Amino acid sequence: MSYFLKAKRIDEETGSIKVALLNELEAWHFGIHAGDNLKLTIDGKAIYVSANTSKHRVRPGQIGLYKDVWSKAKILNNSIVQVEFQENARSIQAIKKRLLGKRLNYEEIHSIMSDIVTDQLSKVQITYFVASGFMNEYTDEELYFLTKAMAETGDMMKFSGLVADKHSVGGLAGNRTTMIVVPILAALGVKIPKTSSRAITSPAGTADTMEVLAPVSFSVDQIRKIVNKTNGCLVWGGGLSLAPADDKILKVSYPLSLEPYSKMIVSIMAKKVATGVNHLIIDMPVGPTTKIPDMKTARMLEKKFTYVAHRFGIKIKVSMLKTSDPVGFGVGPALEARDVLRVLQQKKERPGDLSHKAVHLAGQLLELIGKCKPGHGSTLAWKVLDSGRAWKKMQQIIKAQGGNPNVDSEQIVLGAHKKYYNATKSGKIVYTDNKAINLVCRALGAPSVKLAGIYLNKEFGVRVKKGERLFTLYAESKERLHLAEIALEKLRIFKIE
Amino acid sequence: MSYFLKAKRIDEETGSIKVALLNELEAWHFGIHAGDNLKLTIDGKAIYVSANTSKHRVRPGQIGLYKDVWSKAKILNNSIVQVEFQENARSIQAIKKRLLGKRLNYEEIHSIMSDIVTDQLSKVQITYFVASGFMNEYTDEELYFLTKAMAETGDMMKFSGLVADKHSVGGLAGNRTTMIVVPILAALGVKIPKTSSRAITSPAGTADTMEVLAPVSFSVDQIRKIVNKTNGCLVWGGGLSLAPADDKILKVSYPLSLEPYSKMIVSIMAKKVATGVNHLIIDMPVGPTTKIPDMKTARMLEKKFTYVAHRFGIKIKVSMLKTSDPVGFGVGPALEARDVLRVLQQKKERPGDLSHKAVHLAGQLLELIGKCKPGHGSTLAWKVLDSGRAWKKMQQIIKAQGGNPNVDSEQIVLGAHKKYYNATKSGKIVYTDNKAINLVCRALGAPSVKLAGIYLNKEFGVRVKKGERLFTLYAESKERLHLAEIALEKLRIFKIE
Repeated sequence: MSYFLKAKRIDEETGSIKVALLNELEAWHFGIHAGDNLKLTIDGKAIYVSANTSKHRVRPGQIGLYKDVWSKAKILNNSIVQVEFQENARSIQAIKKRLLGKRLNYEEIHSIMSDIVTDQLSKVQITYFVASGFMNEYTDEELYFLTKAMAETGDMMKFSGLVADKHSVGGLAGNRTTMIVVPILAALGVKIPKTSSRAITSPAGTADTMEVLAPVSFSVDQIRKIVNKTNGCLVWGGGLSLAPADDKILKVSYPLSLEPYSKMIVSIMAKKVATGVNHLIIDMPVGPTTKIPDMKTARMLEKKFTYVAHRFGIKIKVSMLKTSDPVGFGVGPALEARDVLRVLQQKKERPGDLSHKAVHLAGQLLELIGKCKPGHGSTLAWKVLDSGRAWKKMQQIIKAQGGNPNVDSEQIVLGAHKKYYNATKSGKIVYTDNKAINLVCRALGAPSVKLAGIYLNKEFGVRVKKGERLFTLYAESKERLHLAEIALEKLRIFKIE
Repeated sequence: MSYFLKAKRIDEETGSIKVALLNELEAWHFGIHAGDNLKLTIDGKAIYVSANTSKHRVRPGQIGLYKDVWSKAKILNNSIVQVEFQENARSIQAIKKRLLGKRLNYEEIHSIMSDIVTDQLSKVQITYFVASGFMNEYTDEELYFLTKAMAETGDMMKFSGLVADKHSVGGLAGNRTTMIVVPILAALGVKIPKTSSRAITSPAGTADTMEVLAPVSFSVDQIRKIVNKTNGCLVWGGGLSLAPADDKILKVSYPLSLEPYSKMIVSIMAKKVATGVNHLIIDMPVGPTTKIPDMKTARMLEKKFTYVAHRFGIKIKVSMLKTSDPVGFGVGPALEARDVLRVLQQKKERPGDLSHKAVHLAGQLLELIGKCKPGHGSTLAWKVLDSGRAWKKMQQIIKAQGGNPNVDSEQIVLGAHKKYYNATKSGKIVYTDNKAINLVCRALGAPSVKLAGIYLNKEFGVRVKKGERLFTLYAESKERLHLAEIALEKLRIFKIE
């Protein structure tokens, strides 16, 4: 469908997105809505604009064009403008094609990602695209195309040479291994520019936890400087424009709480590609209360991660471990930061599971890179941790990011309002409810309240006596403590039998 | 996931949609976004609200509740509120289920329609539902459920006794048979409460055309009075709350120009059910430039229409006719109204095709109702038309709707700016481009400009001589006429060979 209208020059600029103004009633009759993409043809030249409508500023038969458009295209008042509804936009055609069950090629997928990033596609249109991926699983090739297009439509922070990374799929409380793996690798001369997210549905993300020790928001240039100085960094990735389509896709995934695995793979890998990572270890906790419910799913994901990584020449290892037990004793930004420091500073109270898991992951990454013979990675990682070299490196990173490098684990400030919970019977801890921990931490205010959280005095598998301390709540106010107490009337952190 | 917060009473009312106010940062950490549906539990009672967020009006740990909520639920300041993200809302579960390729039962479909109508589902969520229908065709049973739920979640205008209706699927220029069928049936004592749409993508809808003769916007009660007085009416359905979910589904279908046949069936049938129609004839023009491209599609649709109708006990007949030729000579509200009057008033210039098609449809409807023996419907309809009884009835309807019953076809005001187009060669008209007619009418300003349009002086199949008049443009301004002239440089209304 196309319509013919007369240009009316409007002496205003609209900024980056090109806009044309239609008479509201007429637009309605044309079936055109505010926000629709239009193709205008004027003297044989095509201009792509987004439709705005107004009752009075343009009459029926007119189309209002702003300065950004008419100054470039030399349009006069009363020039004849052919207006076409952009249902033929390549991205929209591609979305329709996929809704019909067909597969997309790279150009089609790139057009979608590119139009998402430049706001050419509306939320509703992006939703159709997400729905198409949910109903018809992407092929491996489509996953590769999606990853490539998502990376290439954002900033490319590409570091050169050997670039390592470690990524946790998440869903497990605590689990701050990243903050130990990064200094171990960096201490051994491996470049590891780690960008992390803040918590969305968990009590703390790596960025939230690192922020207890140092600032985490930097520009690409600043990150480059930090990494050039120390080999590593622990920064927040959300402020960068790495794979920016991801966020917009996430926004339309929320309202249905959709998190298809394919989206997870693309979202993780696109950021790695944009950062220039070429050696990657994925930490994938498997268990009913994590994101990956069973080993069958985990192995399917391992295959897909590996396929996509190899298409980019990325060496990858997926480390799957069946668990739903929190890693470390603390849950919440400050408590997790204290656990990390206790491990790096080799304190007596350090959580053994956190050290072990971090060393294991660091070791596997070292083997993948070829820093040591197969089977010797963990030994090498232990040495770096035990000798204090990892902590020295972490001090350099904290300093480079503007924090206090002389912080001691026992100086970390925790919530002033505490409450202890003791065992109501004797027995063995046979189950830890990761989701309950999550909810109680939320009630306490984590992660926005950094010093709030739970310290687990006991862990899965140990025997406890009636009256022994099980866990401790920390909050910054009586009110938040009270909210957690109420939550705990319905929830059970440990199951004792 | 659920969270515990303390109630803060806010002394304001929000109106019909229940809202709760969360601290912006905290909501973000909860993964809750403005507009999300939440389930609040207070003292064991559940309240469903939509989330709003604010930086300052509520602190973290608090949830702001407006008067509408706390006055009914007897909530005190600091009451403990359990907040659950409504991913478990029945409608959302149902949408997810269908996205996974499963079929829905009536309760599930009703929950979706009901939540659409009450604004419990956001545009993005409705989009997922529409996408699911596009990717996996609805079963016949689902079509019935959809129709029933869409009708029952709106006003039910139910007329009692025998209620007839005629519906054109559309896509054909002119084709104002409805305005002739209704008075014929009503003259024979058949109740035919006709609600029509305005044009969206065509130059005139029945409501636009009838509006040339009389007002068309009425309440349900007013419509009931008009029908009780005259047996018929020709009113605009858009202002009524018949099948209100339809409009909202339409809104998210636009941005991808999706118009699946299933949506068309449900949308048409739900309105018939809400009106209480029990005898229905569907006029379905079939051809490359109409909505139904071929007979195969038409027969598939006939089957589905029939299935759904029978589930409601509606007697139905689908009248399929291969054509892409406009019906009548005029296109545009005033020109079409003139055609209709010329037929009803038996003027010399009346378009034969319009009379014939209207009589044919009226006849089939009369046979369906049992007003005459099979095969005798057209004869009966002709009699009513020829004898002037149809015009008399139309006068009553025009009067009951507040128009001038003594209007003469030749008094209809047309656009003052005319332009004639003549044949540039001799030959036979072998093709009429329905879409081109549409576009030129748009350029002239129809349907918002009622007196704009095209009068076709010739029709498909006739021989013309070079220089003979082919068609006439009518516009209310030189500018609009000029726009149409430009459109006609690229478009061809008739193909002569």
